[in-house]
Amino acid sequence: MTEGRIRLGMVGGGRDAFIGGVHRIAARLDDHYELVAGAFSSTEEKSLASAADLGIDPKRAYGDFRQMAIREARLKDGIEAVAIVTPNHMHAPVAKEFLRRGIHVICDKPLTATLADAKSLVRAVERSDALFVLTHNYTGYPMVRQAREMIANGDLGDIRVVQVEYAQDWLSTPLETTGQKQAEWRTDPERTGAGGAIGDIGTHAYNLACFVSGLALESLCADLDSFVEGRKVDDNAHVMLRFDGGAKGMLWCSQVAPGNENALTLRIYGAKGGLEWTQEDPNRLWYTPLGEPKRLITRNGAGAGDAAARLSRVPPGHPEGYLEGFANIYSEAAAAIRARRDGGTPDGDVVYPDIHDGLAGVAFVDACVKSSRRKGGWVNV
Amino acid sequence: MTEGRIRLGMVGGGRDAFIGGVHRIAARLDDHYELVAGAFSSTEEKSLASAADLGIDPKRAYGDFRQMAIREARLKDGIEAVAIVTPNHMHAPVAKEFLRRGIHVICDKPLTATLADAKSLVRAVERSDALFVLTHNYTGYPMVRQAREMIANGDLGDIRVVQVEYAQDWLSTPLETTGQKQAEWRTDPERTGAGGAIGDIGTHAYNLACFVSGLALESLCADLDSFVEGRKVDDNAHVMLRFDGGAKGMLWCSQVAPGNENALTLRIYGAKGGLEWTQEDPNRLWYTPLGEPKRLITRNGAGAGDAAARLSRVPPGHPEGYLEGFANIYSEAAAAIRARRDGGTPDGDVVYPDIHDGLAGVAFVDACVKSSRRKGGWVNV
Amino acid sequence: MTEGRIRLGMVGGGRDAFIGGVHRIAARLDDHYELVAGAFSSTEEKSLASAADLGIDPKRAYGDFRQMAIREARLKDGIEAVAIVTPNHMHAPVAKEFLRRGIHVICDKPLTATLADAKSLVRAVERSDALFVLTHNYTGYPMVRQAREMIANGDLGDIRVVQVEYAQDWLSTPLETTGQKQAEWRTDPERTGAGGAIGDIGTHAYNLACFVSGLALESLCADLDSFVEGRKVDDNAHVMLRFDGGAKGMLWCSQVAPGNENALTLRIYGAKGGLEWTQEDPNRLWYTPLGEPKRLITRNGAGAGDAAARLSRVPPGHPEGYLEGFANIYSEAAAAIRARRDGGTPDGDVVYPDIHDGLAGVAFVDACVKSSRRKGGWVNV
Amino acid sequence: MTEGRIRLGMVGGGRDAFIGGVHRIAARLDDHYELVAGAFSSTEEKSLASAADLGIDPKRAYGDFRQMAIREARLKDGIEAVAIVTPNHMHAPVAKEFLRRGIHVICDKPLTATLADAKSLVRAVERSDALFVLTHNYTGYPMVRQAREMIANGDLGDIRVVQVEYAQDWLSTPLETTGQKQAEWRTDPERTGAGGAIGDIGTHAYNLACFVSGLALESLCADLDSFVEGRKVDDNAHVMLRFDGGAKGMLWCSQVAPGNENALTLRIYGAKGGLEWTQEDPNRLWYTPLGEPKRLITRNGAGAGDAAARLSRVPPGHPEGYLEGFANIYSEAAAAIRARRDGGTPDGDVVYPDIHDGLAGVAFVDACVKSSRRKGGWVNV
Repeated sequence: MTEGRIRLGMVGGGRDAFIGGVHRIAARLDDHYELVAGAFSSTEEKSLASAADLGIDPKRAYGDFRQMAIREARLKDGIEAVAIVTPNHMHAPVAKEFLRRGIHVICDKPLTATLADAKSLVRAVERSDALFVLTHNYTGYPMVRQAREMIANGDLGDIRVVQVEYAQDWLSTPLETTGQKQAEWRTDPERTGAGGAIGDIGTHAYNLACFVSGLALESLCADLDSFVEGRKVDDNAHVMLRFDGGAKGMLWCSQVAPGNENALTLRIYGAKGGLEWTQEDPNRLWYTPLGEPKRLITRNGAGAGDAAARLSRVPPGHPEGYLEGFANIYSEAAAAIRARRDGGTPDGDVVYPDIHDGLAGVAFVDACVKSSRRKGGWVNV
Repeated sequence: MTEGRIRLGMVGGGRDAFIGGVHRIAARLDDHYELVAGAFSSTEEKSLASAADLGIDPKRAYGDFRQMAIREARLKDGIEAVAIVTPNHMHAPVAKEFLRRGIHVICDKPLTATLADAKSLVRAVERSDALFVLTHNYTGYPMVRQAREMIANGDLGDIRVVQVEYAQDWLSTPLETTGQKQAEWRTDPERTGAGGAIGDIGTHAYNLACFVSGLALESLCADLDSFVEGRKVDDNAHVMLRFDGGAKGMLWCSQVAPGNENALTLRIYGAKGGLEWTQEDPNRLWYTPLGEPKRLITRNGAGAGDAAARLSRVPPGHPEGYLEGFANIYSEAAAAIRARRDGGTPDGDVVYPDIHDGLAGVAFVDACVKSSRRKGGWVNV
Repeated sequence: MTEGRIRLGMVGGGRDAFIGGVHRIAARLDDHYELVAGAFSSTEEKSLASAADLGIDPKRAYGDFRQMAIREARLKDGIEAVAIVTPNHMHAPVAKEFLRRGIHVICDKPLTATLADAKSLVRAVERSDALFVLTHNYTGYPMVRQAREMIANGDLGDIRVVQVEYAQDWLSTPLETTGQKQAEWRTDPERTGAGGAIGDIGTHAYNLACFVSGLALESLCADLDSFVEGRKVDDNAHVMLRFDGGAKGMLWCSQVAPGNENALTLRIYGAKGGLEWTQEDPNRLWYTPLGEPKRLITRNGAGAGDAAARLSRVPPGHPEGYLEGFANIYSEAAAAIRARRDGGTPDGDVVYPDIHDGLAGVAFVDACVKSSRRKGGWVNV
Repeated sequence: MTEGRIRLGMVGGGRDAFIGGVHRIAARLDDHYELVAGAFSSTEEKSLASAADLGIDPKRAYGDFRQMAIREARLKDGIEAVAIVTPNHMHAPVAKEFLRRGIHVICDKPLTATLADAKSLVRAVERSDALFVLTHNYTGYPMVRQAREMIANGDLGDIRVVQVEYAQDWLSTPLETTGQKQAEWRTDPERTGAGGAIGDIGTHAYNLACFVSGLALESLCADLDSFVEGRKVDDNAHVMLRFDGGAKGMLWCSQVAPGNENALTLRIYGAKGGLEWTQEDPNRLWYTPLGEPKRLITRNGAGAGDAAARLSRVPPGHPEGYLEGFANIYSEAAAAIRARRDGGTPDGDVVYPDIHDGLAGVAFVDACVKSSRRKGGWVNV
């Protein structure tokens, strides 16, 4: 499995960052990648320090992502893929530099801070031979795949209702005024985009709902708030959803809901049954065939199918978590990258969020902001 | 406690009915009432049969509620209170007959099938000396009282977000076409009103959210659906809520969500903490003071206060349920009725849903229907 | 249903008592009984005061249980049944007075404080025409009946393992030295018997395990402790169980386990499946057919059978609790008493714990105490 | 962090194996190790195939562990540590070869198949300069560390009761007769030892109970069974425990409990509070200070202390699981190995199960088997 590890670079993810470390573990977990280069910071010194921490050749530690793209593209054993883990507004400019040089991109979400940037990046992907993978990591959880497979199989019948929510509490106070870096950029419209909570976690919820249900959004009606005084972006969002084909839904996301850590919960109801899953207990999926007792399907356990099994590592009852789910995105990407190496396409089972999911997410945020500013009218997406 | 049991009559609640039996147990549980008369059905024969089942003097079994009101009002030991457990459209006409004769009314929810009826009934209550109690029974759960007390005490700080939902699955198929009586009248606009699920269970959710949070609704934006073909009323409703003072909320109710029995769940988040409660596990209340571990407060257990204790019967860990919560409404009503007997007012702790809550509920349904027909605009309530 | 309510008396259950109030609600809930007499206390004045609280004719308030038995037996409309809710050492002497006069006995558990008393009471029951019902109330929970039915039907195959436990924390401190009445008598060997926790709650756990599994105990090995200094009876008990036919089990009961209120949990595993139930969440039963997903069977819900349905009052999702379970014992007793009135026997579905269960419980406590004193050897029961 | 990755070898863990793959991920997760050699199988061809799978230099793929030890010890860049993931009976002979050559050993549990082997291995460790780490991986869970820290801090007061259990269902049928490799060796006394379930998972439960409580076992009384016909070792074990200082406990382990996957649950009760943790939901720890509401402490969340934080990677609400807990053992070992490289000792916070824990585990199994054969007498450990 490790033969021919994929040579990976990273942009962002220096010492102060959070998500960069997660990407590195995710890349390492299944031994598909080797991190060999990085522009971990925009100052060369800091980038070098991070490279040293990570055991990376100092010659391949860059202070500038463009320079990195140029040089790595020329190296015989230059990186084949780059992970982009910068704040949102820097996703598009970085991605484009690598895409144009044929280097695959694995990019954190949301795609971009603005819809214009998103559209522009779509074109860049279309022009490139390289792959573009968006780390909507929750789609990597085995039981999310299980749910998706069951719905695709028709186990729920026609979908009627989709309830999705993502609640946190870490921004219940004006944390961004205390110097906390994560809070700072995530509440700064310049870096995060016009959506706050709706962009940061609402897009995850939206992506997950569509990924599992297979539905496409038709229109939405949103009500966004900034409950913490002085906050420049929303920290709570209520959204009503109408899907193509008539299903309806609700999305709630909040960063001001005390007692919630990363409470991403998806519930889908159809004419023949219902499914319920929550990210904080990710190895379990509740399935109710209409008129029968509720069943607990566990990862790799009785009742779980192939879609879950192929992304599982250990037996049922030994929980896999967030990092494993994240790693699954990297492993799916690896399968696609390897197939591309061989001039082919990956196995049909390989699935990952791509540029189109990314555009849909940014369009979703844009529509939420619009609807809310209009005081709640329905907006087509 | 039993001395001077309150003489109770009932309208509705014959052999086919469901909620009548619940009211009878609720009335009996704490020994405050004695059921002595009833118009259990609109046909005298059936009413007599029910009376016989219930050990009630056949002379006080009526086939007509007006006749019952007239005669009982004249009897020396006539009923002091009447429980109305008919379909919604019959609440107002029945209640008025008893109110005008000074007989207290304990009425099932929602108040009426139409807003006009509701307003007319408000006037009837205002003109009467008798009490009017609406059995929004979920407000009788001790931990609901606990939550209300904590919010009133400021434990959550300013309320920001209210998430409430009531999901069922029993109408996932066109049950009303099979002869099932409960389904028939609850999906018949003539008897149930313009709201289906939103009237039947949405009003419970709405009432509970206001009762606990202490907030008043300012406006709403709703999306109602009838997913089951041929159904004449909504069976799923999504509603966004704006409360006076700036709090926001979401309400979801559904009767087509497989795997849900009576999943009424309330979550309230404020600047200083959060509370979460669910009806199917009613003896527990989750409380998170911001920045501290989540705490499990149990009925009569450590951390529970007076408001819960006064409506509890048994020690913590011995669950009380739906019937006990319902009985608490009857016991609160009994306290009020007894105080009235003595020419006084009940203890300040005595709380029950009244005619104003009833009117608010019907106005809520009316606004939801309006908003939904307008395709989602915000409607003031 | 209420026609011909059974005339009930009570011994014990005065103002300071706890369980008397529970019995009264249980008797009243389904309207099968009318409480008409009582020796609520051993001092006449207190008994009268309780009678006044309860709306009982003062002529039928007694200060002496023997006098009550004599007089009630002579009255034309004297009591047909008596509820005995005294401390354990007073069960036998009181029961015998009523049994010998043909008055049915509904007696709190454990049967007696000593094995000698238990055996003597068995003889008294055998000599009497009256019924003897022991309120091992947990056997009245619908999902306990469901579990029992499933095992009797062979759904679990041959039973291999029975894990039962009953944990509380209310005696974690020397509460009996503070004047708390419940703690006083329950830790006084004179009144409670040689077993403390093992008698008070261990017998419930033991009874429940046998009731559900259908197994009979062959031998046991116990380790009893008094963790609170100065306590005269055990407050924690560990017991290993061997059943006839080869099944094995463990029983743990404790009154010094902080965080446990009434955590009575039963888990039974057989060759074909497993069942799990816990008293604090009584409306749910977990069933795993070997090799299939775990299923959640709910009271009155999908998958629940007749045994649960006949003891349920309200639809699934509306929880019934401790009082309803307790009332089911009273209702089963009522069915038996009414059948006896008519000179017949009750319907075959009617089941309640009887004198033999009571004797088994006391023998169990006796064997636990013996085994523990011997330092853990196996003792036949 | 990755500079100077530790060069790791592996014995066992070829294509058919389960636990070898887990060790490899655990070693890789935090980037402390590089797997560079292995005797993955006792046939050279299979070992080579596994090496190829793993991207390991074929020159360092061995068919014989002794040959591997000899050669690696001589190589300039030979392995510094070896992971032993063979069946139990092969732990001691393999470990000794590496220990005598100064190569650190990271060994799967239980230590050995026999007590004699365990004692002999203790002597080998004592004679060696190398470290010996036993992968009782559950001790690596952050919330297990949290519990241990709280007890060490006295938050529970004197410990009174320890309830531990580990239930599975995968051996409910005679799986070992079907050719399933894992079942074959784990039920073969030659390879697994005299204890079946008690050795395989009972030792985990025992180790965890001691690790968290800080208690040492004084004596035990056990009842072991083989419920599946023809099975040569126990598949269910009931054990009563007496700890030094007077605490008491129960241990249940089973591989025939349908509905249980890896249900390892630990509950500890002291004079001042209680703690409850379960492996299938490992990010949560329930803590009840006596007389206060139960609190939910989450990994990295409010209320969690340093011991948990130092072994956490991601924020609260993003679950870490089995592999992360396992990796924590490897990371603790890495800290110790690195300190040894520098001629020092690791930070005082570094904790891992060692040879003494291993011996204690084997002695525990031995005592259980003895007690059970004697029909339940207490056996000193």
